[in-house]
Amino acid sequence: MSKIKYGIVGASGKMGKEIIAIMNENGNELVFKYDLDGEWENDSPQILIDFSLPQVFEKSIDYGIKFKSPFIIGTTGLSDEQMNKLKEISKQIPVVQSYNFSVGVQLLLECVQLLNKKLTDWDVEVVETHHRFKKDKPSGTALMIKSVLAQDRPAGKAGINISSLRLGNVVGEHSVSFGGLGETLTITHNAISRRTFAEGVLRAVNFILDKQNGFYTIKDVLSS
Amino acid sequence: MSKIKYGIVGASGKMGKEIIAIMNENGNELVFKYDLDGEWENDSPQILIDFSLPQVFEKSIDYGIKFKSPFIIGTTGLSDEQMNKLKEISKQIPVVQSYNFSVGVQLLLECVQLLNKKLTDWDVEVVETHHRFKKDKPSGTALMIKSVLAQDRPAGKAGINISSLRLGNVVGEHSVSFGGLGETLTITHNAISRRTFAEGVLRAVNFILDKQNGFYTIKDVLSS
Amino acid sequence: MSKIKYGIVGASGKMGKEIIAIMNENGNELVFKYDLDGEWENDSPQILIDFSLPQVFEKSIDYGIKFKSPFIIGTTGLSDEQMNKLKEISKQIPVVQSYNFSVGVQLLLECVQLLNKKLTDWDVEVVETHHRFKKDKPSGTALMIKSVLAQDRPAGKAGINISSLRLGNVVGEHSVSFGGLGETLTITHNAISRRTFAEGVLRAVNFILDKQNGFYTIKDVLSS
Amino acid sequence: MSKIKYGIVGASGKMGKEIIAIMNENGNELVFKYDLDGEWENDSPQILIDFSLPQVFEKSIDYGIKFKSPFIIGTTGLSDEQMNKLKEISKQIPVVQSYNFSVGVQLLLECVQLLNKKLTDWDVEVVETHHRFKKDKPSGTALMIKSVLAQDRPAGKAGINISSLRLGNVVGEHSVSFGGLGETLTITHNAISRRTFAEGVLRAVNFILDKQNGFYTIKDVLSS
Repeated sequence: MSKIKYGIVGASGKMGKEIIAIMNENGNELVFKYDLDGEWENDSPQILIDFSLPQVFEKSIDYGIKFKSPFIIGTTGLSDEQMNKLKEISKQIPVVQSYNFSVGVQLLLECVQLLNKKLTDWDVEVVETHHRFKKDKPSGTALMIKSVLAQDRPAGKAGINISSLRLGNVVGEHSVSFGGLGETLTITHNAISRRTFAEGVLRAVNFILDKQNGFYTIKDVLSS
Repeated sequence: MSKIKYGIVGASGKMGKEIIAIMNENGNELVFKYDLDGEWENDSPQILIDFSLPQVFEKSIDYGIKFKSPFIIGTTGLSDEQMNKLKEISKQIPVVQSYNFSVGVQLLLECVQLLNKKLTDWDVEVVETHHRFKKDKPSGTALMIKSVLAQDRPAGKAGINISSLRLGNVVGEHSVSFGGLGETLTITHNAISRRTFAEGVLRAVNFILDKQNGFYTIKDVLSS
Repeated sequence: MSKIKYGIVGASGKMGKEIIAIMNENGNELVFKYDLDGEWENDSPQILIDFSLPQVFEKSIDYGIKFKSPFIIGTTGLSDEQMNKLKEISKQIPVVQSYNFSVGVQLLLECVQLLNKKLTDWDVEVVETHHRFKKDKPSGTALMIKSVLAQDRPAGKAGINISSLRLGNVVGEHSVSFGGLGETLTITHNAISRRTFAEGVLRAVNFILDKQNGFYTIKDVLSS
Repeated sequence: MSKIKYGIVGASGKMGKEIIAIMNENGNELVFKYDLDGEWENDSPQILIDFSLPQVFEKSIDYGIKFKSPFIIGTTGLSDEQMNKLKEISKQIPVVQSYNFSVGVQLLLECVQLLNKKLTDWDVEVVETHHRFKKDKPSGTALMIKSVLAQDRPAGKAGINISSLRLGNVVGEHSVSFGGLGETLTITHNAISRRTFAEGVLRAVNFILDKQNGFYTIKDVLSS
C-alpha cells in the first residue's frame, strides 16, 4: 500500500505507542495525535485510530467527523450510549470497532460459541488476567465473551461470572471454562505482546481505507 | 429401555468396573465376562463391551462373532492391522469404536479442527497427562488429536509432537496448544472421573442395539 | 491400630461418606451419626468427626463434650466466634481442626509463605475452583491461604483478592499467583478425589487418640 | 554506580540486545562486542557478558582472560567439559554463571527443592515451553530443575522426564508437577519479557565488579 497519513487518539498509551511503531515501520506517516499532553497536528489524517479512554470518546469522534476520515476504535469500557453514538456516526464515516484486535481472540470466540451451544447444561466461568496498570475491570474482551455466552444461555448475562485478576505486567490472558459432571473443557488465549493487537489494527487500516460508510467489526476485517 | 443382558471383556480393569456399575444401576444384567481371571458365562449377551488390552483383541472379536452381538470397543493402543480387522468384522456385527467415549473430548476435537484449519502457520503441541498405571503411551485420545491435526498440516503427522506425562492417579487430561508470533491459544479437556467415559458407553449401548451391521464412532452416537 | 468406635456429624455428606468408607476399610466401627436424617446411636464413640455445616456446630460440640471424645473437625465456613469456642472446648477434649486435610495443601501453604516473604512487591491473586454444589464461597482453604499471605503484606487481608469459580463437579483446585514486572510464579493444588482428604482424616484419627487436651492442626498431624 | 565499560559476546542475539538496552539505559558504555558479524572493539571492557552459543565458548573465555575482566555467562547448553573449564577459569577472573537470571526461577527452584524432599514417593514431571527459534532442547533452566530434583530421588536423573514444547514466540515457561494418588501440586514460572533476565544480569554486573576471583551463581547475586 502507499504511504498513509494517520492520526492517533491516545498516542502516549501502551497501545498508542505500539500502533505508531508498526504504522511507521510500514512506511506510514503520523500527522495528528491527541493525548494527555494535548493536541498536535501536522496535516489532516486520512485515517484516525483511537486507543484511549471512554472519557475522551466524544472529543475523539468530533475529530473523526472533522477529518471525514475512517475511524478505528479499540478503546475499552465504552458505555451503551457511546456504542450507540458510534453506530450513528458510522453513517457518516466508516468505523471499525472491537475490544480486541487479535486473530486468536476471534477464534477463541468462535470456539466458545460452538461449545456453548452444545453445553448449555454445563457451568461456565470466565477468567481474565491483566497487568496491574489496567484501568477497566473486567476487560472489554471478557465482556465480548460474556455477550457470546449469554446468547445461548437461558439466564442470559445474569448467570455468567467473570473473575478479573491483576498481576504484574501480564499483557492479557482470557480463559473460558465449561464444567459438566465428570469433565471440564477450558479454552485460553494468551497475548504474548501488544504487537499482536497492533498487527490487527494494521489489518483494519488496510481493510477500511476503501470501504463505504458503515459499522464494521474485526470479524469483517479478518474474513476479508 | 428394557433390561439388557451384556458381556464385558476386561471386567476387572478400571473402566470395566465403572461400566459394570453404571450398566447395573440402569437395570441391566451382566451375563458374561472375560479378564485375567478367565471366562465366566451365565447366558448369551445381547451386547459385548471391550475395554481391555490390544493383546486380548483377537479373543475379544471371536466372542463378538460367536454371540452375534453388537460390539462396543474402547481398548486403546490397537494396531493398524487390528483396526482394519475391526472394520472387516463390522460387516457381520454392528461395531462402535472410539479411543475416548466422553462428550467433552469430541467437542475438543471439533474445536481443534476449527482452529487448525485457520492456524496452519502457527505451531501446535499436544500434551496428555495420565495416572502412573497407564499402559500405553501416548494415549489413544492423543493419537486421535494428532490425526485430526495432520489433516490440515503440510508436514502431516511427522510434524506433530505429543508430550506424555505420567502423574499420580490423574484420570486423564489432554491439551492442544497453538502458538503464533505474539499469542497462544490452548484448549484443554480434563476428565474428573471415569464415570464420564462410562456414561458415553451407556449412550453407545442404547445407540447400537437397533443398528444394522457397520462401523460406528462415538461421533455417530453423540449426534443421534 | 485396634478397632476404633467412631461417630460422624454430617454422615450423609460427600466427605462424610468418604470418611466412613476409609474408616471401615481400616477395620473401625461406626457407632454414632448425626445428619439431616437425625441422630443414630449404637454405642458411645471413642472419637467424633465433624464434616458438616456451620449451622450444626453448636450441636456438634455438645456431642463432643457429652462423649468426652477427641474431636476432629473439617467443617468450613466457621465464624470467628465459632473458632474461639472451639479453642475453648479444646481445654476439655483434644481437638484437630483444619479447613483442608490433604498433604498437598499443607505444602502449598509452605511454598506460598516462602514466596510471599520474598515477593512483597509483586501482586498476588488466589483462585479456587469447586463443584457447583459447594455451599460456602470462598472455600475454607482459600481463606487459609489468604491468612498466610496477609502475614507478610503491609495491606493485610484487605489487599488480597480471591476469585471463586464453580464448575461441574470439580473436587477442588487452589491456585496462588505472584506477578512481578516481567514474570509470574503460580502454584496450584488439585484434589483428584475426596479420598485424599479422608486419608488425612485417618491420619488425624491415629494422631489424636493418645493426645492430651489441646488445639491441634493438620500441621501437627502431618509432622508427627 | 559509575559508568561501566562493558563488552558482550552474542551482541546480536535476543538476549544480547536486551542486555545492551538495559546497560545503556543505566548509563554504561558498550566498548566491545563479538557475534556472527565478527569482532568490534572500541576500548577494553571492565566486564564481559556472554549470552551466545556453546560453539563460541572457547573464544569467549579467551576474551575474558585477555581483558582480565569479570565474566558473566548465561549461555545455555554448555557441556560438562565446558562447565569444568569455566570453573578452572574462575581462579583467574570472577565468574557468574547461570542458565537463568530471573528472580522467579530461583524461587521456583527453592520451592521445587522443598516439595521434592517431602514428596519422593510422588511422580514428578517437568515441562518447558519456548519460542520456535530456541536452539537448545531441553532448556538450560529445565536441566537446572532436573539436577535439583535428582538430588533427593533414588533413581537420580534417570527417572526424571522433561517435556519440551516449541510454540510461537513464547518467552519461556517452566512447570514442575508432583503427582500423588489423589492430588497434584504444580509450580509454574512464566517469563513475560526478556527484560526480566536482563535485569538479573544488571544485578550480576553490580555484584561482581568488586568480587575476588571465584565461581558465583545467580543465587549468590540475589542473596547479596
